[in-house]
Amino acid sequence: MKKIEIELNERSYPIHLGTMECLEHAGAVLVVTNPKVGGLYLSYVLGRIRAREVFVCTIPDGEAYKTLESVEMILESAFNHRLDRKSLMIALGGGVIGDMVGFASGIFQRGIGFVQIPTTLLSQVDASVGGKTGVNNAFGKNLIGLFHQPKAVYIDPLFLKSLPPREFGAGVAEIVKMAVTFDREFFEELERGDLRDHSFLLEGIERCVKIKARVVAMDEREQGIRAALNYGHTFGHVIEHESGYGHYLHGEAVGMGMVMANTLACGLGLLKESEAERIEKLLARYGIPTRYTIGDVERFYDLFFLDKKSENQKIKFILPEGIGGVAFRDDLSKSMVLSVLEAFCD
Amino acid sequence: MKKIEIELNERSYPIHLGTMECLEHAGAVLVVTNPKVGGLYLSYVLGRIRAREVFVCTIPDGEAYKTLESVEMILESAFNHRLDRKSLMIALGGGVIGDMVGFASGIFQRGIGFVQIPTTLLSQVDASVGGKTGVNNAFGKNLIGLFHQPKAVYIDPLFLKSLPPREFGAGVAEIVKMAVTFDREFFEELERGDLRDHSFLLEGIERCVKIKARVVAMDEREQGIRAALNYGHTFGHVIEHESGYGHYLHGEAVGMGMVMANTLACGLGLLKESEAERIEKLLARYGIPTRYTIGDVERFYDLFFLDKKSENQKIKFILPEGIGGVAFRDDLSKSMVLSVLEAFCD
Repeated sequence: MKKIEIELNERSYPIHLGTMECLEHAGAVLVVTNPKVGGLYLSYVLGRIRAREVFVCTIPDGEAYKTLESVEMILESAFNHRLDRKSLMIALGGGVIGDMVGFASGIFQRGIGFVQIPTTLLSQVDASVGGKTGVNNAFGKNLIGLFHQPKAVYIDPLFLKSLPPREFGAGVAEIVKMAVTFDREFFEELERGDLRDHSFLLEGIERCVKIKARVVAMDEREQGIRAALNYGHTFGHVIEHESGYGHYLHGEAVGMGMVMANTLACGLGLLKESEAERIEKLLARYGIPTRYTIGDVERFYDLFFLDKKSENQKIKFILPEGIGGVAFRDDLSKSMVLSVLEAFCD
Repeated sequence: MKKIEIELNERSYPIHLGTMECLEHAGAVLVVTNPKVGGLYLSYVLGRIRAREVFVCTIPDGEAYKTLESVEMILESAFNHRLDRKSLMIALGGGVIGDMVGFASGIFQRGIGFVQIPTTLLSQVDASVGGKTGVNNAFGKNLIGLFHQPKAVYIDPLFLKSLPPREFGAGVAEIVKMAVTFDREFFEELERGDLRDHSFLLEGIERCVKIKARVVAMDEREQGIRAALNYGHTFGHVIEHESGYGHYLHGEAVGMGMVMANTLACGLGLLKESEAERIEKLLARYGIPTRYTIGDVERFYDLFFLDKKSENQKIKFILPEGIGGVAFRDDLSKSMVLSVLEAFCD
């Protein structure tokens, strides 16, 4: 097992990469998973936990269930099993499970520890590291939540073996996101290699975790540079909201969102058309949808304002500045933005 | 206006004591209150806020409404008014409003700022300072919540003029709690003076805020000494739960809880009978109920385990050690505790 440390003073924690080793805890443990992941991997994980008591809570699968109601189900299970302040929650699943267990553990008795065991590529390279937790509501995505860093993250490649191709592609979208915003060399390697190759994939995961670790250590609460990781997300969140949560996977919406952001970046002279094409081509190689059709540009535009990144009625766009760089722009006119959105109408 | 600073590094904030001065905020502000307090003081407070936009959210009054549903009402109002990460929530009311606005602002878009304007004696001397937020649920009191420090607290004695005698007594119970656990001299002054005297009351509030400020600065997240402020609460929470939230005011339940804790402390030789009598006499002077009748001691005992302060199936008792001192005990046998509870049966 390799270990990468997230440096956050008293909130520092390790990311373990490789076959999962034994997880020891002195108090009670509640493992939260969904029926699909639990069916495949619960016994594998339970066999690696040493704790006074271990309970399991199973919640419904999918982005559509990333709600306050599901968090309440987790809390109810925790109360029923009499967890206390010394207990630990474990998130066994993808980003949805991880975000909700992070949230539930953050508000259970004013906060207890939790551990991430991400089982999708997307959550292994991005969502499980950095302490963002939350749920969706009628107004948009991740609008309710808090920053709550895990005590540890276990990234075990075993879980990826059962990953459906769409889920794999959704994870690749976030890998591409990391490369475009922070690491040109990594992007070029991605163009040359193939993430379906196991050892190349493991290298890619490690690289993403290292980028994420560096960014989170610099800016835990997203006051600055961490927002670069939201490249593709400003558009992507609106796509997810408009198409109904669960229609597209989060990573797919981010993929389409990056293509929209690229169009805007090209219009502003931040990105060359040829670079935008290379990014889109890389996404398409993994079967990631890259083109979303907007029905009503005014409605789409309006939905930006529910995003957490819009402040004082300004939309904050995160745009690639060439490949390997990033620019923030919150001064764009509505007509400028609408003209980009119109390029995505039928 | 006097100013007392709560020293918590980057989370430090001022407590303003006296007639409220102007509160300025660059972004949007959401004032959360209940119909009773709002009817009396909303215009007074709105006249002292300078902000880009000011919205008001009114939620039902009382401990019975200190629920996740009420927090969702606050969040919905915040989303409807398009609050963003630069917005501010203001809690105008007693401890219930303060705890819920602290919680809602802590999870709205992963946390925005909030200001406390406590309007009851209890919330002025205790609840509004220190960043504890939360709601009750079927399992007990304040079991869901987080630590979220306010940006400022405004303690204006004007609000106390309309306070009903029961609410006043509930606040006095927390003042007595502070004196018994931390300040023998203050306790003796309380025995000599009368808190119904306005200037003596103001001194008492200031003294409590200073004690609280010192304790919170030493132990923000209640890893140690801050738990002393829960004297009376281990028993009090069970009383509130068993009698139904809202039957007794929180401060009243704490008053009765202190008397139970004193009985236990006397049994352990930590407190003299004469000291226990002095504490009960001081509470009774302000019409605070001091005797709760337990119906079923086994049931009462069982309810201790839902308290946040019980860990690894042990109950943590906070007991006075003489007047002005405090002791923690988590090693008491069930029979020892039951014998104390039986003293409170009919």
